[in-house]
Amino acid sequence: MAIVNVGFLQDLLHTITQRDSRAMRRARQRGLPDSAADLIDACRTLMDSDGEASSIALAQRALDIYKSLATDEKKAFFQSLARDFSADRVAIEQAYGAWQSHHDEATLGQLFAACEPARQELLRRLNLPAGGTLELVRMRQTLLEVMGDDPELRAVDADFQHLFGSWFNRGFLVLRRIDWQTPAAILEKIIAYEAVHAISDWQDLRRRLDQRDRRCFAFFHPATGDEPLIFVEVALEPAIPERVQAILDEDTDGAADDGPLTTAAFYGISNCQRGLRGISFGNFLIKQVVTELSRELPDLRQFVTLSPMPGFRRWLDELRRAEPARLDAETLATLDRLDDPDWVDDPSTQETLAGPLRSLAAHYLGVAKRRGNTPLDPVANFHLGNGARLERINFLGDRSAKGLETAAGMMVNYLYVPDEIERNHERFTADGHITQSSNVRDLSRRARKMIQENPAP
Amino acid sequence: MAIVNVGFLQDLLHTITQRDSRAMRRARQRGLPDSAADLIDACRTLMDSDGEASSIALAQRALDIYKSLATDEKKAFFQSLARDFSADRVAIEQAYGAWQSHHDEATLGQLFAACEPARQELLRRLNLPAGGTLELVRMRQTLLEVMGDDPELRAVDADFQHLFGSWFNRGFLVLRRIDWQTPAAILEKIIAYEAVHAISDWQDLRRRLDQRDRRCFAFFHPATGDEPLIFVEVALEPAIPERVQAILDEDTDGAADDGPLTTAAFYGISNCQRGLRGISFGNFLIKQVVTELSRELPDLRQFVTLSPMPGFRRWLDELRRAEPARLDAETLATLDRLDDPDWVDDPSTQETLAGPLRSLAAHYLGVAKRRGNTPLDPVANFHLGNGARLERINFLGDRSAKGLETAAGMMVNYLYVPDEIERNHERFTADGHITQSSNVRDLSRRARKMIQENPAP
Amino acid sequence: MAIVNVGFLQDLLHTITQRDSRAMRRARQRGLPDSAADLIDACRTLMDSDGEASSIALAQRALDIYKSLATDEKKAFFQSLARDFSADRVAIEQAYGAWQSHHDEATLGQLFAACEPARQELLRRLNLPAGGTLELVRMRQTLLEVMGDDPELRAVDADFQHLFGSWFNRGFLVLRRIDWQTPAAILEKIIAYEAVHAISDWQDLRRRLDQRDRRCFAFFHPATGDEPLIFVEVALEPAIPERVQAILDEDTDGAADDGPLTTAAFYGISNCQRGLRGISFGNFLIKQVVTELSRELPDLRQFVTLSPMPGFRRWLDELRRAEPARLDAETLATLDRLDDPDWVDDPSTQETLAGPLRSLAAHYLGVAKRRGNTPLDPVANFHLGNGARLERINFLGDRSAKGLETAAGMMVNYLYVPDEIERNHERFTADGHITQSSNVRDLSRRARKMIQENPAP
Amino acid sequence: MAIVNVGFLQDLLHTITQRDSRAMRRARQRGLPDSAADLIDACRTLMDSDGEASSIALAQRALDIYKSLATDEKKAFFQSLARDFSADRVAIEQAYGAWQSHHDEATLGQLFAACEPARQELLRRLNLPAGGTLELVRMRQTLLEVMGDDPELRAVDADFQHLFGSWFNRGFLVLRRIDWQTPAAILEKIIAYEAVHAISDWQDLRRRLDQRDRRCFAFFHPATGDEPLIFVEVALEPAIPERVQAILDEDTDGAADDGPLTTAAFYGISNCQRGLRGISFGNFLIKQVVTELSRELPDLRQFVTLSPMPGFRRWLDELRRAEPARLDAETLATLDRLDDPDWVDDPSTQETLAGPLRSLAAHYLGVAKRRGNTPLDPVANFHLGNGARLERINFLGDRSAKGLETAAGMMVNYLYVPDEIERNHERFTADGHITQSSNVRDLSRRARKMIQENPAP
Repeated sequence: MAIVNVGFLQDLLHTITQRDSRAMRRARQRGLPDSAADLIDACRTLMDSDGEASSIALAQRALDIYKSLATDEKKAFFQSLARDFSADRVAIEQAYGAWQSHHDEATLGQLFAACEPARQELLRRLNLPAGGTLELVRMRQTLLEVMGDDPELRAVDADFQHLFGSWFNRGFLVLRRIDWQTPAAILEKIIAYEAVHAISDWQDLRRRLDQRDRRCFAFFHPATGDEPLIFVEVALEPAIPERVQAILDEDTDGAADDGPLTTAAFYGISNCQRGLRGISFGNFLIKQVVTELSRELPDLRQFVTLSPMPGFRRWLDELRRAEPARLDAETLATLDRLDDPDWVDDPSTQETLAGPLRSLAAHYLGVAKRRGNTPLDPVANFHLGNGARLERINFLGDRSAKGLETAAGMMVNYLYVPDEIERNHERFTADGHITQSSNVRDLSRRARKMIQENPAP
Repeated sequence: MAIVNVGFLQDLLHTITQRDSRAMRRARQRGLPDSAADLIDACRTLMDSDGEASSIALAQRALDIYKSLATDEKKAFFQSLARDFSADRVAIEQAYGAWQSHHDEATLGQLFAACEPARQELLRRLNLPAGGTLELVRMRQTLLEVMGDDPELRAVDADFQHLFGSWFNRGFLVLRRIDWQTPAAILEKIIAYEAVHAISDWQDLRRRLDQRDRRCFAFFHPATGDEPLIFVEVALEPAIPERVQAILDEDTDGAADDGPLTTAAFYGISNCQRGLRGISFGNFLIKQVVTELSRELPDLRQFVTLSPMPGFRRWLDELRRAEPARLDAETLATLDRLDDPDWVDDPSTQETLAGPLRSLAAHYLGVAKRRGNTPLDPVANFHLGNGARLERINFLGDRSAKGLETAAGMMVNYLYVPDEIERNHERFTADGHITQSSNVRDLSRRARKMIQENPAP
Repeated sequence: MAIVNVGFLQDLLHTITQRDSRAMRRARQRGLPDSAADLIDACRTLMDSDGEASSIALAQRALDIYKSLATDEKKAFFQSLARDFSADRVAIEQAYGAWQSHHDEATLGQLFAACEPARQELLRRLNLPAGGTLELVRMRQTLLEVMGDDPELRAVDADFQHLFGSWFNRGFLVLRRIDWQTPAAILEKIIAYEAVHAISDWQDLRRRLDQRDRRCFAFFHPATGDEPLIFVEVALEPAIPERVQAILDEDTDGAADDGPLTTAAFYGISNCQRGLRGISFGNFLIKQVVTELSRELPDLRQFVTLSPMPGFRRWLDELRRAEPARLDAETLATLDRLDDPDWVDDPSTQETLAGPLRSLAAHYLGVAKRRGNTPLDPVANFHLGNGARLERINFLGDRSAKGLETAAGMMVNYLYVPDEIERNHERFTADGHITQSSNVRDLSRRARKMIQENPAP
Repeated sequence: MAIVNVGFLQDLLHTITQRDSRAMRRARQRGLPDSAADLIDACRTLMDSDGEASSIALAQRALDIYKSLATDEKKAFFQSLARDFSADRVAIEQAYGAWQSHHDEATLGQLFAACEPARQELLRRLNLPAGGTLELVRMRQTLLEVMGDDPELRAVDADFQHLFGSWFNRGFLVLRRIDWQTPAAILEKIIAYEAVHAISDWQDLRRRLDQRDRRCFAFFHPATGDEPLIFVEVALEPAIPERVQAILDEDTDGAADDGPLTTAAFYGISNCQRGLRGISFGNFLIKQVVTELSRELPDLRQFVTLSPMPGFRRWLDELRRAEPARLDAETLATLDRLDDPDWVDDPSTQETLAGPLRSLAAHYLGVAKRRGNTPLDPVANFHLGNGARLERINFLGDRSAKGLETAAGMMVNYLYVPDEIERNHERFTADGHITQSSNVRDLSRRARKMIQENPAP
C-alpha cells in the first residue's frame, strides 16, 4: 500500500546515509561479517552524532540492520560491543589518579563516568526510536542465548542488565487487569507466554478470564506497549485449593453453593520476556495484586498460591538411583510404583504413595538445600524469599502429564500472611529459615525417618 | 473522610517501623537536624532492605519525610547524600587493582560497579512508589536551587542527571496534543508553565488552543502522569508571521481570507520542569511535532519559529554604555531614543529605529559569540544547534512590556528546512557556522559598518 | 485552511441540489419568507427521499438552512410544520372507518399511523446527521420561546416532546463524574449552565470540583456528546449543612477536624437544555448519584439536599400586601423589617426575624398549595414528588443577593431516606400528603397561629 | 461471591413488592400461565407507577420475569400485550369526535395520543434499566419467531418496530473499527454473527482483521454496548477482486508486488440482531465506511463489493425443472453437468459451464424480477437500491460448499460510483431500472437468446 506522507525524519535520514562510506570501509577491513560490520558502522555513526538532530533516524537504521542479521552475525556484533565499545583505558587511569589525589565526590563522579563502557551510551541511543526498548529486550534475549560462559559477552550482558534495571524500575510499571474486554492482540500473548499451565486455545483462555471467580493481572511498561512483562492468574475460592485441574477445567462460573469466596489463589505466575531475566517483577506483582483484590473484594480473607514443584521428581529419582542407601527399603519399594506410568489411575497405589510422597515433598521443599542455604526448588525459593509461609502439600494436585513428569503430581500452597511477610522474609534472608505450617512440619518429621541424613547435600 | 480499605502494603509498613530505633539514634548523634536525620535513617533502612518485600513502603516513608523538611534540612540531606551515600574506597581500589591486572571487560564491569555511588541505588529505590519519579524531579529542583558551586552537591546533582537521562530517554516520552478537550488539571499547568508569552487566564488559553488554526503539543512521561515536561504552541498561518501579538490576540478563528494556511509557526516553547534541567527534549519535540503536523495537514509547506531574542537589549545596552566607542556617533544617538519609554508609540521614532535595530539584531544573533563559539543568545543557540536557518528579523515583533524590555521589541524567525537541517546542524557544531537568509546577511553586513570590530568579544 | 479530502456524502449532495427548483418555486408562491421557503423545500425533498441514499446529506442541508434563519423566519417555519406537515384527513377518516368495523389491533395500528403528523417523520429524518439531535433540541428551545399560547405551535411542540421522550429515555443516558480531570470543553458548559448558585470563574469551579469532599455528576446522551443535560453538585459533610455559603466558599479541602463525612448534601441541580423542558431527568439523576456515592463511600449515612425556596419572598410579600388581615399585627410589624435592605447585617433584627421566618417558610413549603394540591414552591414539588421528606428549615441559609431577594435568605433540607421514598412518593401523589420532620411540623403549627386560614387558596 | 454494597434501588424495590398481591390475583384468574400472569402483573404495576420513583426497579423486575419464561409463556405474554395493553376505545371515539369538529392540530394531537397503544409506553418504561434496550431487542426476536401470521401479534410487532425505528435512528449509531486491538468480548460476537462467509476460528478471524490490507467496521448503539448491530468486512486490493477464497485464505499480509491498493472491496456484510429486522443500517454503514476509508487512504480509487447471489442456484434449478421448455436444448444439456458434484474440479466442465452460467447469472440479477419490479435476488435488491451499479459477474468466485450449493459458485461485484449513486438510486426506485456495465449488458443479451421470454414472471 502506498505510504502517503513521507516522514520528516526519513528525509533527514536520507541526507546522512552518504557520509558513512569511510566508516564502513574501516569496519569491514577488520574481518567482521559484512552485515555485522554495517551495524557496527551504523552504531559508530550514531555515537558520533551528538544525540540530537538525526539520532532517532540513525538509531532506527541500526536497529533495522540488527534485525536483519543471522544469529552468528549477532554474536559477532555482541563481541564487537565488548571489544570496540568499552571504556578508554587512559581516561580511567587519569581519573583514578585524580581521585586518589582528592578522594572527593567530584573526582569520584569523573572516575565513575570514565569507567562506564561506551556501549551503555550506545544502548541508550538505540532506545531513542519508538519501539526501541522492545528491540533491546529482544537483543538481550539473543545475547543470553549465545553468551555461554564467555566473560566478554557476560560483561556486555551486565551493561544491559544495569540499564534495564533502571528502565524497568517498578515505579514505571503499570498494572492492568486482563479479562475478556482486553484486546485480542494482548490476549494472544497471554496464551503464548503462559509458562506454568499451558493454555490450549481461546476457549481455555476464556475459562481463565471470563468467569466471576477468576482474575488475571499483568505488568506492562509504557515503552513496550502491548507486551506483558509478567502476569499472574488468580482463582477466587471458598477455601485453599489443592487441585489445579479443578481450577483449570471449571466452567460453571464458580460461585455455586460452596460458600463465600474468601480465598484468592494464585495458580500461575509467568514471566513473559526472557530478555528481562534478572529484573525482578514477580514479588511486586503479587503484592500489588493483593492490594487490588483487597480493594475490590473486601471479603477476601487469605492469599495463597497453588504452586508447582518443578524439581521434585528429578530430585526424588536421583535420590532413588544415586543414593538408594539413604532411603529405607520399604520406602524404596513403594516409590518403585512411580515407574509404572499408570500408577496415577490405580486407587490402591494412590493410597500407598500418598503418605510417602507428601512427606518427601515436605522434605524436598523445606529441608533440601543447595549451596548458599537456598531451597533446591526455584519456586519455593521465590515465594519463601518473598516472605510466604510453606502451608500445605497436595497429593495429586496436578494430574497433567507435565505435573506427573516433573513432580509426581505434587503441588504446594504458599500462604501470604500480611503480618508475617516481613519477618518471614528477614529470617529467610538472614539464615535460610523457612516458616512452615505445623502440618508441613509433621510431614518433614516423618520424612526424616525415611531419609538418612546426608552430610554433604 | 475515613479511608475504608487499609492497604496491604501499609500493614507491611507497620511491622517494620519498630526496628528502626537503633538506626535513628545513630544518625542523630551525628548532629543532623532531627528530621533530616530521620530521613537519612529511613534511607538507610531502605538500602538495607534488599529491594524486595517492603521496599515500596519504605521508599514512600522516606519521600514523605523528605517532603516535610524545611529547605535547610533538605540541604543537609543532600550533603549527607554526598558524604554518606558515596562509594566504598577500598572496594574501588581493589577493583582497580584487578582491572590493572587483567584489563578485560569483566574487571572493567566490576570497577564501574564499585565506582557507582550508593546514592544512585538509593534514588532508584526512592523511585519505586507510584509518584516517586515526580518527587525526585522536584527534589532535584531544590538541589539545583541550593547547590551553588558546592562541588559535593554538584556531584550529587550529576547522579540525578545520570539517572534522569536514562529514565527520561526520548523513547519513553509520549507526545499528546493539548486542546480544549484536555482535562482542566493539565490545562492549568499549561497556564502556569508558559514561559515565553504569559497566558493571562482561561480565556487567553482558549484562544491558543481552541481555534482551527492553533495547535499545542506536549511531551509527557508515563511515570509523571499529568505533568507536562515541555510544550510548544503553534499557529497555522498563510505566511511566515512577524508579530506575536497578531497571533496572541486573534480571536476570529483565523482561516479568514488570508489564503491557505501553508506555514506552521512555533511561537512558544516552554520547559516545564526545572528539575529536569540539562535533559534535552526541545529538539525532539520540534521534530516530532513537524511530523505530526505534516501527517494531519499535508498542505503545510514550511515550519518556522517566531522567537524572542531574550538577551538583545542587555547586549545592546552594554555595548552603548561600556563600549560606546565601538558604535558610530549617529547610531549611538539614534539608539538613545530607546531610553524614552514611549518610543514605541511614536511613528517617526519607529521609522528611525527600525533600520539600525534590525541590523544590530542580525549582528547580535549571527555574529556575537561567547567563548566556545556559540551565539550569545540562548534561543538562537538552541534553534541553530538544531539545524534551523536564521531567516528573518522582525522589528516590533513583540510589543509586550517584556518584549520591549528584553529585546527592544525585536523578534526573529528560525526556519526548519528538512533538506538543510542535518547539514546546518553539522556545520554549526563543527565550526559555529550559522546558516542565514540573504536578507539577514545583508543586515549583518550593514551592522558591520555600525560596529567596530572588537578583538576580544 | 484547505480541507484535503472531500467527503463522499458531499459529492452526493452536489448531485441532488439541482432537481429542487420546482419544489422551491412552489413554496415561494405561498408567501413564506424566502429562506423559510427554502427550508420547507429542503424538508419536502428530505421527505420525498425514501430515507436511504442521500437522506443524511439532505437532512444536513435542511439543518444548515434552519440555522441561518432569523427568529421570525424560524417561527414561520414552525407554523408551516403545523400546517404543511400534518396528517392526511382522508387517510384518518378511512382508517377510523376500518377500525370501527373491526375494532382489532391491526386497524388500530393503521389508525395510529394515519394520525401521526408527517412532521414526526420529518424530525426523525432531521436527526440522521451527526449532531442532528442537538440541533433539534435547540430548535425546540426556539419553538418554546416563540410559541406563546398558539395552539398550532403547541401541537408542534407536542410532537417534539413525544420524540424527545423516546430519544432521551433514561436507558440511553450516561452518568459521568465531572471533576478536574474533565475536559475544559465540558467544564465551561458547567460554568455556563449552573442555574442555582452561579459559578463566577474557573477558580470558583475548581473549588466545587477539585476538593476531596466535593462531587459533581452529570447526565449525558451519546448523541449530544459533550453537552451535559443536567448536573448535580454534592458536598460531603459531617452533618446536614444549613448554609450554602459555607459550602461554596470553603477552600480548605474539607476533611478537617469536623469528623467523618457521613452526609452527602446535594446543593445544586441544574437543567442544562431548555429545549428538553418536560423531559424528566432530575429524579433519575438523584437516585443514580445516591447509588454511585454509596458504592464509592460506604460510610455515607444520609442523603440530603440544601435547596432554595425560590418563591418564598414573593409569596410572603403578596401575603403582606394583598392580604395583610390574614397576619396578626405583631408578625406584620416584624416582617416590615425585611424592607430594610440592611436587615441581614443587624444581629438584633436577625434574632427577631428568625422565628417568624422559619415558621412562615414551613407553612409556605408544607401547607401553601396551588390548584391540584401541589406545593406552591417548584423545588418542593420536585423533591417531595420524588419521595423526599421535608427535614429542616434554615434561617439565613443563603446570604447571596439572589437568596435574599427571592427567599429572604431561607433555605431548606429535603432528606432522601431509602426506606421511606416509595411510601412518601405514593402518599404525595395520591393526596398531596407531605412527610415532614417533627421539627418542621412544630414550625408549621406555630405558623398556623400567625396566619388566618384562607378558604380559597 | 458476596455482593458488598446493597444498591439503593434494590432497597426501593423491596418496599414495593408487597402491594402487588391484589393485581396478581386478578391476572391469574384470567387463565394465563402463572409466570406470564406474574409478568403481566409486573407490567401493570410498572404502568401504574408514574414513571418516577421506583420505575427502574419495577422495569428490571418485569424484565427478569420475562427472561425466566418458556417460549409459550412468552407468546402468551405477547398476546396479552395485544389484548390488554391496547388503546382505550371510548377515548379514541371522543378524540375523533373532537377532531371532526375542529380539524386542527391540537385535536389531531389528542387523537394521535389516544390511538397510541398502551404497550408503547410500556416498552418505553421497560427500557429504563441499564441493559433494557438489548432485552427488548431480544424480546422482539422471540416475537418474530412466534408471531406467524397472527394479526394481533403483528400489531404488537409494529409497535416494537415503531419504537426501534426511533431509538436506532442513524444519528445515534456509532461506527467503530474492528481490529486485533478490539476486546475479545466483541470479537467473539463477530465470529458468531458472520453470516456470509463463516469464520472458522480465531486464527481465521485474525486473517480478516490483522493484516495491513484488511478492514472491518461495525455500527454500535450506545445503549446496547458491546453488541455489534451490523458489520462489514473490507479487503484493500490492487483491482476489483473476483474470487472470495483469495481474500479469505490470504495470509501473506498482502501488499506484495501486486501494485498499489486502489480498490476497497466489501466482501461481507452481516446483520447481527434479528430483533432489529426492518430497521435499516446497511446502506448507512457502507456510505460511512466509504467516507472513513477515503479519509484514511486518499489513494483509494474505487469502492466495490464482492457479493454472493444467494438465490441463483434455486432459481436456475427451478427454471430447469419446472420450465425446461424456456431453455434451449444445448443450454439444458450443459447445465445438467451441474448435477455432478465434482464438476467444479474438472477443467473441461468448467470451461463449458463458464459462459452459460455467467450469462444466466446476469439475467438472474438484472432481468428476473418478482412482483413490484424488484430483483429476485435480495443482495442485488439491497445494493442496487442503494445506488450501486451491477459491474461484473465472476465465475467460480466462491468455491465453498455453500457458494456452490446456493449459487453454483457465482459471485458478483457491485460498484459504488459516487457521482452515479443518487441517479442510480432514483431510477431504480422509480421504475426498477438497473445500471449495468457494458460487460454485464452483453451477458444479459446472450442470456436472452438462451431463455424464452416468460409473459408472467
